[in-house]
Order: sequence, then structure tokens, then C-alpha cells
Amino acid sequence: MTRRHPASDPLGIAVIGTGRMGSDHVRRIDRVVSGARVAAVIDVDGERAERVAGTVDGCAAYTDPAAAMADDAVDAVLIASPGPAHEAALLQAFKHDLPVLCEKPLTPDAASALRVLEAEARLGHRRVQVGFMRRYDAEYQRLKSLLDAGEFGRTLMLHCTHRNASTPPGYATPMMINDSVVHEIDVTRWLLDQEITAVTVLRPAPSSAAPEGLSDPQLVLFETSGGAVVDVEIFVNCGFGYQVRCEAVGERGTARIGDAHGMYVNAAGRWGGEIPQDFTERFRDAYDREVQAWVDATRRGEVTGPSAWDGYAAAAVCEAGVRAQATGERTPVTLAARPALYGA
Amino acid sequence: MTRRHPASDPLGIAVIGTGRMGSDHVRRIDRVVSGARVAAVIDVDGERAERVAGTVDGCAAYTDPAAAMADDAVDAVLIASPGPAHEAALLQAFKHDLPVLCEKPLTPDAASALRVLEAEARLGHRRVQVGFMRRYDAEYQRLKSLLDAGEFGRTLMLHCTHRNASTPPGYATPMMINDSVVHEIDVTRWLLDQEITAVTVLRPAPSSAAPEGLSDPQLVLFETSGGAVVDVEIFVNCGFGYQVRCEAVGERGTARIGDAHGMYVNAAGRWGGEIPQDFTERFRDAYDREVQAWVDATRRGEVTGPSAWDGYAAAAVCEAGVRAQATGERTPVTLAARPALYGA
Amino acid sequence: MTRRHPASDPLGIAVIGTGRMGSDHVRRIDRVVSGARVAAVIDVDGERAERVAGTVDGCAAYTDPAAAMADDAVDAVLIASPGPAHEAALLQAFKHDLPVLCEKPLTPDAASALRVLEAEARLGHRRVQVGFMRRYDAEYQRLKSLLDAGEFGRTLMLHCTHRNASTPPGYATPMMINDSVVHEIDVTRWLLDQEITAVTVLRPAPSSAAPEGLSDPQLVLFETSGGAVVDVEIFVNCGFGYQVRCEAVGERGTARIGDAHGMYVNAAGRWGGEIPQDFTERFRDAYDREVQAWVDATRRGEVTGPSAWDGYAAAAVCEAGVRAQATGERTPVTLAARPALYGA
Amino acid sequence: MTRRHPASDPLGIAVIGTGRMGSDHVRRIDRVVSGARVAAVIDVDGERAERVAGTVDGCAAYTDPAAAMADDAVDAVLIASPGPAHEAALLQAFKHDLPVLCEKPLTPDAASALRVLEAEARLGHRRVQVGFMRRYDAEYQRLKSLLDAGEFGRTLMLHCTHRNASTPPGYATPMMINDSVVHEIDVTRWLLDQEITAVTVLRPAPSSAAPEGLSDPQLVLFETSGGAVVDVEIFVNCGFGYQVRCEAVGERGTARIGDAHGMYVNAAGRWGGEIPQDFTERFRDAYDREVQAWVDATRRGEVTGPSAWDGYAAAAVCEAGVRAQATGERTPVTLAARPALYGA
Repeated sequence: MTRRHPASDPLGIAVIGTGRMGSDHVRRIDRVVSGARVAAVIDVDGERAERVAGTVDGCAAYTDPAAAMADDAVDAVLIASPGPAHEAALLQAFKHDLPVLCEKPLTPDAASALRVLEAEARLGHRRVQVGFMRRYDAEYQRLKSLLDAGEFGRTLMLHCTHRNASTPPGYATPMMINDSVVHEIDVTRWLLDQEITAVTVLRPAPSSAAPEGLSDPQLVLFETSGGAVVDVEIFVNCGFGYQVRCEAVGERGTARIGDAHGMYVNAAGRWGGEIPQDFTERFRDAYDREVQAWVDATRRGEVTGPSAWDGYAAAAVCEAGVRAQATGERTPVTLAARPALYGA
Repeated sequence: MTRRHPASDPLGIAVIGTGRMGSDHVRRIDRVVSGARVAAVIDVDGERAERVAGTVDGCAAYTDPAAAMADDAVDAVLIASPGPAHEAALLQAFKHDLPVLCEKPLTPDAASALRVLEAEARLGHRRVQVGFMRRYDAEYQRLKSLLDAGEFGRTLMLHCTHRNASTPPGYATPMMINDSVVHEIDVTRWLLDQEITAVTVLRPAPSSAAPEGLSDPQLVLFETSGGAVVDVEIFVNCGFGYQVRCEAVGERGTARIGDAHGMYVNAAGRWGGEIPQDFTERFRDAYDREVQAWVDATRRGEVTGPSAWDGYAAAAVCEAGVRAQATGERTPVTLAARPALYGA
Repeated sequence: MTRRHPASDPLGIAVIGTGRMGSDHVRRIDRVVSGARVAAVIDVDGERAERVAGTVDGCAAYTDPAAAMADDAVDAVLIASPGPAHEAALLQAFKHDLPVLCEKPLTPDAASALRVLEAEARLGHRRVQVGFMRRYDAEYQRLKSLLDAGEFGRTLMLHCTHRNASTPPGYATPMMINDSVVHEIDVTRWLLDQEITAVTVLRPAPSSAAPEGLSDPQLVLFETSGGAVVDVEIFVNCGFGYQVRCEAVGERGTARIGDAHGMYVNAAGRWGGEIPQDFTERFRDAYDREVQAWVDATRRGEVTGPSAWDGYAAAAVCEAGVRAQATGERTPVTLAARPALYGA
Repeated sequence: MTRRHPASDPLGIAVIGTGRMGSDHVRRIDRVVSGARVAAVIDVDGERAERVAGTVDGCAAYTDPAAAMADDAVDAVLIASPGPAHEAALLQAFKHDLPVLCEKPLTPDAASALRVLEAEARLGHRRVQVGFMRRYDAEYQRLKSLLDAGEFGRTLMLHCTHRNASTPPGYATPMMINDSVVHEIDVTRWLLDQEITAVTVLRPAPSSAAPEGLSDPQLVLFETSGGAVVDVEIFVNCGFGYQVRCEAVGERGTARIGDAHGMYVNAAGRWGGEIPQDFTERFRDAYDREVQAWVDATRRGEVTGPSAWDGYAAAAVCEAGVRAQATGERTPVTLAARPALYGA
């Protein structure tokens, strides 16, 4: 019998933020992902950090991200804290040259995203993967493969639908762009490999199911650098469930994802099936694949996936989108020059 | 044994125009529709008129619509001649007070449509049914019933797709509005029971499959008097077939028609089915139902279906749409006052 | 102007039986079908005959089929009376050499069907079309075309589903074969152009929704002269609606009809659509096409569609099927020699 | 900062057999599954064992399962060798009281499966999980949940389809039962929680695409202890892909899985999507979930999933099925008494 050298240690990850997303990532790294372990959790609420750390073997609890990043057991950082805390955590991680998976948004606005981008560019190599998890969804990946294969020619339009059953208290109109349509912004840029150059928003008379003051639904239109047109129905109080669809219209064919998932039932006078009620159900596997892909790339010494440039560009389009919501005008998007680090 | 009085005679119809649509209507009235017969056919090409008349028992051939309408055997008129000939034929029919089924468009522009409308209004009763046959399609009727039932609340948006495999020689950009999107214009007005108040057109970089000079596809946007927003993908060289879909988005649910018709096949590595190649296949039953409904109403002494007002309003929206194509601007639609004959 | 000879008169039809099916055929001939009129209605209940005749211009009422067939206004006969009355009416029609559309079953058993068959054979030409209306359903016709085109090679199996929401009072186990599966018997013979040679019936423990004494559902198996195998789920108290599906399995592909008809809805946590509740909704168009095809063929002097042989063969398979229900054994089907009139 | 005790070591797994399935499990444990590592691989071909071991950090190579099981680094065994080698490996694992995931079949026949069963029963606790991976497929799990919830009442029938694109050289008729339908045997027993009591096989005239001597396709019928009836189309040279469907028919509704997966495309005159070409694509996630579930249960000190009794019962039904193929007769299934270890 022959035995090779002992297995390389699993990747030690510090998870910043232990809210809904953070806790779920802790569970995912601990139970689902191969080759990684939760080395530390960080939360400004120290008790909560301790409580979460207590569920994982060999996991430390911190209230300060900087202290956690100094911990020898920490090889990489997953940022799942609220958006306003991202910039500081990212810059700190750059100091330690640690790989980061940063939940979207990269930062809450284009100016701060640009600062992060420039800091990473100064580092001279990519360290950040932004958490646009739809790129890891099996259906979106199939759609991307089809478009990239070129069988259908150039992509001329995308028709997107983004529906949520209902909104939590405090949800305001700009969040329809910043928290929801931001996914279609990334999907558009990724599927087409083009930048978004202008945004227009049409606002129908709101649904009576929308909370007072929320202009729901809306039709958001993107124009892209390659001349494609994208329409997005964003409807965050549709009542019936969580539904994300995308139809790409090419020169010789169209392809649609997101429809009619799963088991088909005949009962009580109807054929059909169930609509998932939230994104954790619809995109659970995408989150698993995203984190596994990050762990795998990190262990190979690589950084892949959505970059800080993708995070910055999304923030810039969001800013234009929120203005377009308010003015009803076609609103151009202006981007800074793209650093060489992120491709020409 | 008892016998009632002899069956009332079938409705004698004069068909004006014996091109593709006209000939098909002759066949339909002769072979498919109950309670009607083709009494006369009219075409400026007298030989063609004779040839078509020769296929039907007891059918006369004319070159002049006025002469045909004076024929005692003619009880009603179906206009299937080219659009520019419609106004004269309609006004002639009004002189004889004959019921008319007029293929779309009512007339080629809003001004002439308004003249027809005013002439009918002076007559004091409706005589015209306009050939917007989608109102007679079983799927559109089901959608209309659902929306009218109110189960889903107010309708907030429509997402429409209108795709043709390819265009014939001579097809120009304005025809995308006047010949194709005109159906979505009528569908929007009919489904929502609202007028269209503005049109915007977005033009992606054209498909390389589009003939030189044709800006295909386009995204056409309507705003309506009740605050709904409608998007229409018009793509007349999609290559793969004829496909008309409509999804209505209500406050509590959505409904879609036009997808995945018919037989489901597994073969050669794929599941799915065939896409019809043209509108005669997709809407054959709608044409049958349309003409049968017109015959039935006429025999009862009634006029139902799309009115001259519907024909006029469609023409006015088309004019705005063609301007919007050219300018890229949001273009308001202005309508004349609606005569009492057509409802408040 | 030129006018051809007057239109040939519409076909005068005598409808025997004014129950649910008969009344519906009267309406269909009067209002839907082109080129025919109801010349007479016959019912043993004279008052009902008068009442129905009173709804149609120029329609006579009779209580005796023989008297009606002697009426000069009667050119053809549609038999929609109860099955036990069919044989006498058919033989009477043969005396007058009148074309007949006979609702299924041709007669209630194989022996009487054979007598009818032999009488028609003695006549020397076909007079009878049997009312197996599925052959006129658009989806079944598409399936038949696909199989006949040979693209998928020989057909190896059929998987059939036949579900009814519930059964009326008095419905007994043999009726699952005689009234329901008889359609799959005809479909099998027609699609494959083969005779059924054996029947086996498997009876699961009955649904608690089935009335006392009804062994519902069942799985009925056919073997055919060409070596195909057919399974039929017959479930007449499925509760959720009326659903008829058929999947053909060929050597190189499969094709399925009957699934997921119509409008697609998202609402209340579910995607899907409505299931029709009875056969009049699902097969309305098939009935229309069946009667129109019969009228058209009759006016051309032809007899087409399912023949008396098809009616007889179905009766013989039903008899074997009812025995197979009772014994649980594989039961061979024996047919008389096929007269030359019905093909080799 | 606080740190709990070091993470418990990952589960060290010995994989027996390094063929297609074995190699894939090595990759899965190394790269996909959380909390486990490949401690050893075993193959009678020592060079192959070395080669595979060389791809994994800290993995030993053996030619003898007994030696591998004596290795301290081995905590559990995954058997992926050919079926005839399973019995010896299982009994060896029992000696070391090691948890085993045994690829199906448990053993090649009912007699040997019974010996394994009895050996485990003597051990007094479950050690074996059998590799019926469909129980871990998301769609089958949803179907199982629906049936168990009882909403549709008792399950009366299952309609199953099991299609492969083509068979490898050497594939013989009994393998249609032993290698393919064995999955439907397990699915039937699991979904219904009933034993199969009789098998009947109908053999249509074979497809001309089937290799000489292979009676393909077949219709396999099961009767169960609870009175349900199950039909299975097994068609192993269908040509168009790999397709596994299951429709459950309950007293108040039906549910179907396996249809129309994934992206929906319009192109070249057709709507639809791609059919996977083999089981690794269709059931990849099921294999991942199966092994993860086994690792998780093992680390908790539990044994879950399909038991040796399930393996034995499947073998007994397979034996009856192969006899039923040969005789064309309904063939009863006889099972040994069920040891208490496996439930009453």
C-alpha cells in the first residue's frame, strides 16, 4: 500500500455578518461545501457571533473584522454584513491580501464601489468575487452556454420577469432597482458581455396590493453598448410567489428559463404545479454552487466569477435606474475607465 | 306530422376582392360557415372574378362593387380588397344600408377612418364590423373572460410577442406597425377596454437576418388611459415560425396564451413540438368564428364585434407608432371625440 | 355579370333521438354546419319531437323513423337514439338507401353489429359512418399524420389515459369498457391500422371515491395484430375533470396529445391551467368537424369515416373486454371474416 | 475571542472499485461532498488503484478490500465494484462493523441478498445503505412528499417510463429488469411503502432499432400488497435520449415528474428543449445528495436510506420479473420473513 502526503487542510473562512444570509452561509460552508470550514464568524453583536460560532467545530467568534482577519486560521473572507459595512471590510481584506466573496451589493453606491475597485487595482491582482449568484444557477448557465455557442446569432433582446410575493415593511421604491433589478443588471451584462448604456423606467398605475407609496410594478428598460434592448418587469407584490424568468431573443431563435418548474399535478380542476415562495428555494443550488466555486478557485490560488468591476458597473446602473424611476426620462449611464486588471 | 314554414334563406354575401384573403373568405362562406352563401364576388380583374365565381353555385361576378351591391341577391358585404379601396366600398355599402365585414385596416389612415366613422354615425346605426379576428380566437377569448371576471384585479401590464418567420419583398419598417402591431393595438384596447394614449418604440441593432433597411426587431411600448403599460416585441424575421403570445399581469395573478401549442414530441434528443409557420394556421379557427359570428348577428339584425371606432382608434395609434419609430420619442396619441353611436 | 345555376339545396337531415346528443346535433346542423339543414326530428316522445322541431325553420316532427325516412325532404339520417334502437333504424335506412351517421355504439353487441354489417354488405356499397368522433379531433389527427408519415418508424406501444370527473347514477363496471374505453378501442385500431387480438384488465383496489360496487380505476391492455401493446388507464371518478391523453411510442420517437391545454396562469402559489370538466368541452370541435365531414362527403356522394366494420370490431373487443374485467384473464378477440366491402 | 475544540476529522472513506461509478464517487467525495475524504481506493487492478489514489491527497491504494478495511484511516466503505463481488465485501465490512454505501444491486440474486440480510440482522444493527439514488432525486422526493401528505388519498396506480438512448454491446433481455427496471421496483416499493406481489411482462414486437435478440421495448406490470397496479415502459434503445418519468394516480389527483426539464427554446420551426443523454446528467444531483446524506448520517452515528431489506426485495422482484419475461405469465413474488431489524 502507498499513501500520498496528508490531505491539504480545508480552507478556513471568516464569515462577516450573521444575519439571514450570513447564518445561511455558515451552515453552507459547514455542511454542504467541500474543502472548506468556518474558521471564524464576526458580528457587531458579540453574543450572536458567539451563538453562531458555537454551532460549528473549531469556529472562533469576533466582533471586529480586522481581528478576525489577523487570525492564522483564516484563509479567506465571506462578507455578508449590511452593504454600508462592505467598503471597510473589503479594504481590510486587501491589507491582508485575503480572497473575498462579497455578498451583493459590492457597496451601496457607485462612488464607494469605485474606491474599492481602485484599491484592488492598486493591489495588482483580483481578490474579490461579488455575490451575483444567478451566474451559478444551472438554468442561467445553460442559457449563457447557448448564447455563447452562437447557434442563435447575436442576442437582440432580453425579456425579464422578476416577481416577489410581497415586500417587507420599510421597502421603498428605489429598492426595486437596488435590491431586485440589480440582479437583472448583472444578468444582462453577463449574458451579453456588454455594458448597459441607458435606463428608462415606465410606471403603470400601482397595484392596489402594493403598500402606500410604492410604485409597484414597473417596467425597466436597458439599452446596451452592443445595441441590445432589455425589458424587465419588476413586480414585488405579485402575491402568488417568487418567479424569475429570462427570455433571450437571438437572430435565429429564442430561449427562455424560469418557467413551470418541477412536478406537474392534476387536481381540483387544474393542471400545473407549485411556484416557489422565495429566493432561497428558487436559488438554493445556485448559492451552493457559488460558494463551492469560490472555495475551489481559492484553493487553486485563483479568483474567478463576478469582479469588483461588475460590482461597480451594477452600482452605476442602479444609480441611473433610480434617477430614471424618479424622472420618467431615459437616463444615460456613465462609467469610469475600466482598469486593465478587469480586461480591456 | 307537422312542418314549420320553410327555412329562411341563407344570407347572400358579396365578397369584394379575390386575392389571398378574399378567396379564402369565399371558400369559408361556401364550405364552412352555416347560414350564408356567396352571392357575388367583385374584383377589378374581371377574369379573376369570373373564375372565383365559377367555383360556387349561384354566384355572380362583378368588377364594380356598386353594381354588386345593387344585386337583389346581395344581403351583406365582406370587404377584402386592398386598404386604399376600403373607404369607397364602405361609403357605397352605407348607401344601400348593407351590413359590412371589413378586413383590417378599416382604411389606411386615421383621417379616412374618421370620415367612414362620421358617415356611419350619420346613418344613425352601426353597419360595420372590422376584421380584428383575434377577438374570435379561443385563447384570446379565454384571456378576456378571465380579465373581465376580475379575479386577478385590475390589469397592470401586458407583455406581447408577435413573431413572423420572414417578410415578403417590399416589406418596410412602418409595416411592422401598420400591418403587424396593429393587432396588438386592437388586442390592448379590447382586453383592457381602454384607449392607448402614448407610444414609444425602441429599436435594437437589427438582426442580420433582416433585409437591408428593415429595423427588425423592435420593442413597442403603449401607455393606456387607465394607466396600464404594454410592451410588444415585434420581430418579423425571427426565422423559426409564426408566434403570437400575450401575458396579462393582474394585481393577483398573470395569464399567458400562445405558448407551446399542440402535440408534444420526443425525438432526436429534444422534447417539444412544432411552431406554426403562418397566421392562417394559427388563426384559422378565429377566422371561421369571426365570419360565423358576423353572419349570425346579421341574420338576427344586429351588428356586433369591432366597430368603426375601433378601426379609427387603431389607425390613430398606428400613425403615432410610425412617428415614434422614426423619432425614438414618446409620442402621444390624440383621438377625435367619440360619437354617441359607439358608446360614451 | 354572369350567374351560375342556383345553389344546390342543402342536405336535409333527419335526426333520430332528441336526448342530450340528439338535441346537440340538431343545434349543430342548424347553426354550425355548412350545407345542411334539419329536415326532421324523430323521437318516441312525440311532444319532445314537436318541441325540438319547433326551434328549427322547416323542420318536421315524427315519432316513427320509417315515416321520417319516407319524407321527401329527408336526404340523410343521423341516429342519436339509445343503442338498442340503432339496429332497426339502420336497417330501415338501408331500405331507403339513405346515408347514415350513427352515434356510437353501432349496436350494443357484436352479434347485432354483425347483422348490420352483413345487411350493408348485401347493399353492395357503404352507407354508414359510425360516430367515433375522436378521429375528427385536431390533436388526434395530428398524431395520426405523424405516425402515418413514418418518421418515427413502426408504432410499438400506446399509453392512453381516459379520466372522467365522476359517474352518473346507475353507472356499472362494464360501462367502463362499453361507453368509455370503446373510444380507445377505436383510436387504437385507427391509429395503428391493426385489429385488437387480445384484452387483459387489471383492477387495482378501487378508489374510495368510486360508488359502491364500481371497480374504478382499471388498467386495460390490448395486444394487436401487428404486435403492438396498448395500455389504457380508465378512471371514471378521478374527481378533477375530463382528461384524455394518448402517447404513441415509435421506434425513433414518441408523441403525446391531450396534455396541458390552453391558457397558462400564475396565481395563488401555482402555475398551470384549467382542466375541462366534460367531453362536450374537450371534443366540441371534433363533433363539429365530424358532422361537417359527413355532410360534405354525403353531398359529394361518398361515404367516408369509421365504417360498420369499425363499429362491429369495436363491439367484439368490448365483449372480450367485459369478459376480461370479470375473469382477470387475458381474453382473445375473435372477429368474423371481413367482407370485401370494407377492404381486404 | 473564543474557539471551540478543533473540527472533528472528516469521514475517511474506502471506495471499492474504480470503474465508471467508482471513479465518479472518488471525485464526488473529494470535490463535492462536505465532511468526508477518500482515505483509500481498492481495485483488483492494482495499477488502476494507484492511478486513482494518486489524484487525491492522502489516499491509499489497495487491491484487497480486507486490507483496506483494516486501515485505521478508513471509517466507512463505499462499494462500487461489480455485483458478484458485493457479498464478500459486505460480509467483510460487517466484520469491521463499518458503515457501507453499497451501489445497487445489493447482490446479483435473491439468495445471496438474503444471506447478506441475515448477516446484518445477526449484527443486530443496520450497517448498509443500498445505492437506490432515485430516492435522493429532488423531483422524486417532491412526489414522495405529496403522496405521504395524503392530499390525493391512497395511490391507486403508477405509470412509469424508463427510456435509454441505446444499449452497449452485450446487453441482454434480462438486464432490462435487473439493471433498469430495478429502479422502478425500488421506486414503487418506496413511494407506496408496499411490497410487490406479482409481475407480468408484455413484449411488443421489438423495435427494429434493437440489437438482434433483444426484446425491446417491454411493458412491465406490478401488483402490490396494497392493491395498487404499476405499469413500466422499459425501452432501452429509444434513440432520442435518457428519460425517466413517473405519474402517480391518487384518489383525488395525479402528479407527474420527469417531463420537459429545463430551458425552453424556439428555433428552426420547433418549440421545446433538450433531452439529457444519460443518467449521469439526469441524476447527477441525486448522486451528490445520496452520498452527502450517507456521510452526514454516518457522522451522526446513524444508518438511513434504502436498507438491505430493500436490496433483497428488489432482487426477489427482479427474479420474478425475469421469469415473467420468459414465460409471459403473471408471476407471483415470494419474500422471506422480514427480520425485526427492518421494521415489522
